[in-house]
Amino acid sequence: MMENYENLQKKANLIRKWCLKSTTAAGSGHPTSCLSAADMMAVLFDRYFRYDLNNPLNLYNDRLVFSKGHAAPLLYTLFGMAGAYPLEELLTLRKFNSRFEGHPTPKFVYAEAATGSLGQGLSVAAGLALLAKRESLPCKNYVLLGDGELAEGQVWEAANFAAYHQLDNLVAIADINRLAQSGETMFGWDTDKYEQRFRAFGFETMVINGHDLKEVQIAFEQAFYHQGGKPLAIVAHTIKGKGVSFLEDKEGWHGKALTEEELQSALKELGEPDDQLKLDLRHPDSISLPKQEVVAPKHGLSFEKGNEYATREVFGEAITESGHQNKDIYVLDADVKNSTFSEDFLRAFPERFVECFIAEQNMVSVAAGLSRLGKIPVVATFGAFLTRAADQIRMARVSEANIKFVGSHVGVSIGADGPSQMALEDIALFGALPDTVIFQPADAVSTVKLTVQMTGHTGFFYMRTLRSKTPVLYDNAETFKIGGSKLLRHSEDDQLTIAATGITVFEALKAADQLKEEGILVRVLDCYCINPIDQDTLIKCVRETKNAILITVEDHFVHGGMGDFATAALAMTGKPIQVKKLAVNEISASGKMEELLELAGINAAAIVNQVHTLISTTVLH
Amino acid sequence: MMENYENLQKKANLIRKWCLKSTTAAGSGHPTSCLSAADMMAVLFDRYFRYDLNNPLNLYNDRLVFSKGHAAPLLYTLFGMAGAYPLEELLTLRKFNSRFEGHPTPKFVYAEAATGSLGQGLSVAAGLALLAKRESLPCKNYVLLGDGELAEGQVWEAANFAAYHQLDNLVAIADINRLAQSGETMFGWDTDKYEQRFRAFGFETMVINGHDLKEVQIAFEQAFYHQGGKPLAIVAHTIKGKGVSFLEDKEGWHGKALTEEELQSALKELGEPDDQLKLDLRHPDSISLPKQEVVAPKHGLSFEKGNEYATREVFGEAITESGHQNKDIYVLDADVKNSTFSEDFLRAFPERFVECFIAEQNMVSVAAGLSRLGKIPVVATFGAFLTRAADQIRMARVSEANIKFVGSHVGVSIGADGPSQMALEDIALFGALPDTVIFQPADAVSTVKLTVQMTGHTGFFYMRTLRSKTPVLYDNAETFKIGGSKLLRHSEDDQLTIAATGITVFEALKAADQLKEEGILVRVLDCYCINPIDQDTLIKCVRETKNAILITVEDHFVHGGMGDFATAALAMTGKPIQVKKLAVNEISASGKMEELLELAGINAAAIVNQVHTLISTTVLH
Repeated sequence: MMENYENLQKKANLIRKWCLKSTTAAGSGHPTSCLSAADMMAVLFDRYFRYDLNNPLNLYNDRLVFSKGHAAPLLYTLFGMAGAYPLEELLTLRKFNSRFEGHPTPKFVYAEAATGSLGQGLSVAAGLALLAKRESLPCKNYVLLGDGELAEGQVWEAANFAAYHQLDNLVAIADINRLAQSGETMFGWDTDKYEQRFRAFGFETMVINGHDLKEVQIAFEQAFYHQGGKPLAIVAHTIKGKGVSFLEDKEGWHGKALTEEELQSALKELGEPDDQLKLDLRHPDSISLPKQEVVAPKHGLSFEKGNEYATREVFGEAITESGHQNKDIYVLDADVKNSTFSEDFLRAFPERFVECFIAEQNMVSVAAGLSRLGKIPVVATFGAFLTRAADQIRMARVSEANIKFVGSHVGVSIGADGPSQMALEDIALFGALPDTVIFQPADAVSTVKLTVQMTGHTGFFYMRTLRSKTPVLYDNAETFKIGGSKLLRHSEDDQLTIAATGITVFEALKAADQLKEEGILVRVLDCYCINPIDQDTLIKCVRETKNAILITVEDHFVHGGMGDFATAALAMTGKPIQVKKLAVNEISASGKMEELLELAGINAAAIVNQVHTLISTTVLH
Repeated sequence: MMENYENLQKKANLIRKWCLKSTTAAGSGHPTSCLSAADMMAVLFDRYFRYDLNNPLNLYNDRLVFSKGHAAPLLYTLFGMAGAYPLEELLTLRKFNSRFEGHPTPKFVYAEAATGSLGQGLSVAAGLALLAKRESLPCKNYVLLGDGELAEGQVWEAANFAAYHQLDNLVAIADINRLAQSGETMFGWDTDKYEQRFRAFGFETMVINGHDLKEVQIAFEQAFYHQGGKPLAIVAHTIKGKGVSFLEDKEGWHGKALTEEELQSALKELGEPDDQLKLDLRHPDSISLPKQEVVAPKHGLSFEKGNEYATREVFGEAITESGHQNKDIYVLDADVKNSTFSEDFLRAFPERFVECFIAEQNMVSVAAGLSRLGKIPVVATFGAFLTRAADQIRMARVSEANIKFVGSHVGVSIGADGPSQMALEDIALFGALPDTVIFQPADAVSTVKLTVQMTGHTGFFYMRTLRSKTPVLYDNAETFKIGGSKLLRHSEDDQLTIAATGITVFEALKAADQLKEEGILVRVLDCYCINPIDQDTLIKCVRETKNAILITVEDHFVHGGMGDFATAALAMTGKPIQVKKLAVNEISASGKMEELLELAGINAAAIVNQVHTLISTTVLH
């Protein structure tokens, strides 16, 4: 057995060697953060980890999420020593076009998620573990956590979630190396404090010396056979920079590579480990990710003109219909399922509904985990509360996750609940993220059609739904597409164009009707797709109207909304086009919808006024 | 003593009456969430709370943060029964122009912060408590928490923070009424689970029956005299809808007002409480908020042209200089003080530096607490990690907090660390929030001047700082202002204008120099103020150049950035102006700064290409 650990120690030191070598070659990185976890990862990979290198998406693979993403060189070295690629390739670390980026990204196919914004990995692993639990996949879901990141609240959201959902296939490995980036962590080496926290949050816990291979092995052996309903936390006392005397437990070494000279001295201390040593992964049974089903483009839902529906309510019906057609759809909600109407889906498919309680950050990262294994997670909450998870949304986008976000109660139109509940910056948030499709259906028919579009395409989608009821605008046979819009009023004598979206479509229509009575004809466009905006139609409208004027009107703050998408689309043309953005310019209030639309200057009267002003001051072309 | 509690119970029932009456008058609201906490709040207000109604900012006031903001009618009733206004005014609840909004906002002067996005109040209270601790103010800081919101990770960030900073003047009151919006909470009435969590996070704890007035009084008595270093949590078993039989512990009553008929029946059950009853606040000593000092507009810092500095590093020096001149400035950082260079301030003013560890959400809400009492909090971390606190930033803006945010390491220019560390959506995030000034200094001189501007003005500010060094552009005597820009290259023969900001200013200058060699003159504008953008200068530039073309170039995602501010400013004019936005269009990578600027198409070569394309295809005017 001693012999056994001696060889394992050599492997651990070879891991160390390549963490140091690769970061020195890169000239940057976090080698000391790798060294504290090297022994534990050696044991895990050499003795317990079941993984098919040829198929990272094999459903029977164990999973390892590197929540402490700055220890990426360690992750890269592990898979290299397991045989995924020659170790020499690690010398491309952090270089342009290398798969080994500074923090793990999808370029590294073995990364379960992009990490590097701290405190998100436990949630991703919980998503993976939840799926394994629900689909009876015999795998373990490990996550390596740094100690500094345990201050992030999301970790405790995830801990609650894991315990609540009885994820005993989840193993949190907390690398307590005492030192964070700028000094000692909150609790230093007081591993009890961490253990108490995990235990209070419903985990079984172990405290170990993360450098005693025997202790580590015993812990992972227990983890391997662990069940009984509780998730498991291994709290490991470790030393940052372990294995190299001049790095061990020293401040000033976070995020710093060794010089070539320091490297040589370190490698000597490590006993010049043999590059031929391998980490022996176990081989899992093989079960491939099933081919994703395609949502049939038909829905049985139909709506009569003259009736009114809240788009959030219709979304609930639509996503449930989609759920019948596509068994990969999962719906997640944060205790507002009776407001977002995701409860319809829960009733039909409890096995594919995930109650995340009031913890939006965890919800989004759990969704990223579900997406990793081919599910189509639909994340629903108030649009305002999606901002709570802005960083998780950002990281899910870096992860190339296929998530559909649905934000309800958008804009000042929600009324009496007041500004804290109004989503007014959500288009800016999602619009900034590359290739994110943004829908805002104004009526029931478009809601159904756009829900089908959303779940049928791979990629990042965001859909805004309304609190209040709106009348049916469209025939049930109408079609809707990514990048589309609908012309609702037009004639050959139109003076200008009004582009609206969501609730303001109805204000624009009212304004158009009033103006018509005065003899002023205007064009009204429903920009149900905010990104990509329908540039061709916008240009066409402006070209065909008497004045090259576009008024955009939306229930969103003025910067970063639909108006900016439309303005940018037109400004590229270089034509003499005037754009006036009507949008929310100040913090709103409580009141009736009508009062708040008026306060914001985005109601029919404001549109009419704006048309009067613009037409009277503009030279015809 | 019995007599005593009888009267108190009547007062509690009068509180209930007005929570019910006001929500029924409003036709919406969360009466049952008020009723569960009514008894506790009656005891607190009637027997312990020290508050000067004439001066909400009296520094010796006790503080009460309503983290469960949906219980706003309870908060409003408390202050009404304490004599702040006639109870009848509560019937304006949720109405337009009422100070009693659906959730507390600054319109209600007794609200310590806007709440309603859950899980933020403990942090705000911790900010208030920290200040009281550091400035030896003899007050208690209470926070009323719902049980549903205890799932929010931020609560546990705040708990860690409060215990770490030994805030024994902080009292968390957890109202465990079992029912959340859409069903039972994670732990129902298992108060032990909550107690364990608070205790593990370093609180002293008590579990009480929140409707037994004697138990409640004993708890608040202990809280009143509590000290010893640990914050205190009172975990109260309560009943949602308590006091009205048909509401008690019933599902389906969250966020629902009683009908007039139901109200009458409820009031009967409550014993038709006497409207003349008052809550007897204690009177604290009076010490007013000191008049805010003005930052002297002079800094001793000067920089020589030819030298290079990272703007983040200069920010560290500048904020420290400002700290000498203005004792109200506090600096908060989330374990990256050696990267943001806020550590300079820590060295000079440890008593006004707040280490928040890796918990950005709590950091921002703590800052909102500091701002409430007249401090000028400067919140520093990587720009990318400010997105972690997007919802807290949003709510701090609703709170009208005077916070200065400084985000370092913006854009792809950070290089090898990769996309997780790059702030590329931060301008969209801050730009959406009304009246938020956004600065991005490109060099050392402008960094100092803009830091002075930032700390000298009241309001929301965001400043972007760069990881890498940039050469000094400006004379030390140069002046900078909100809404300003600097013309760096211009002639009478300019073909078009390039507006740049931050790192891209140098790319624009390089491009201008290369183009000049080809005989093409272009104008280069440093948009150091992104919001409000310098509209006048932009219009002037476009008017004065041969082609009415603006190229914007920035190290930010293409939507929601400086380009959209500039485009919107020009599109309003209706002139034939072409705008081409050069910005980041896809998720970036690891690599050298130069490689990543090239990949994003925002380097000098890309600008030169764009100029060639635009000039060759544009008709002169």
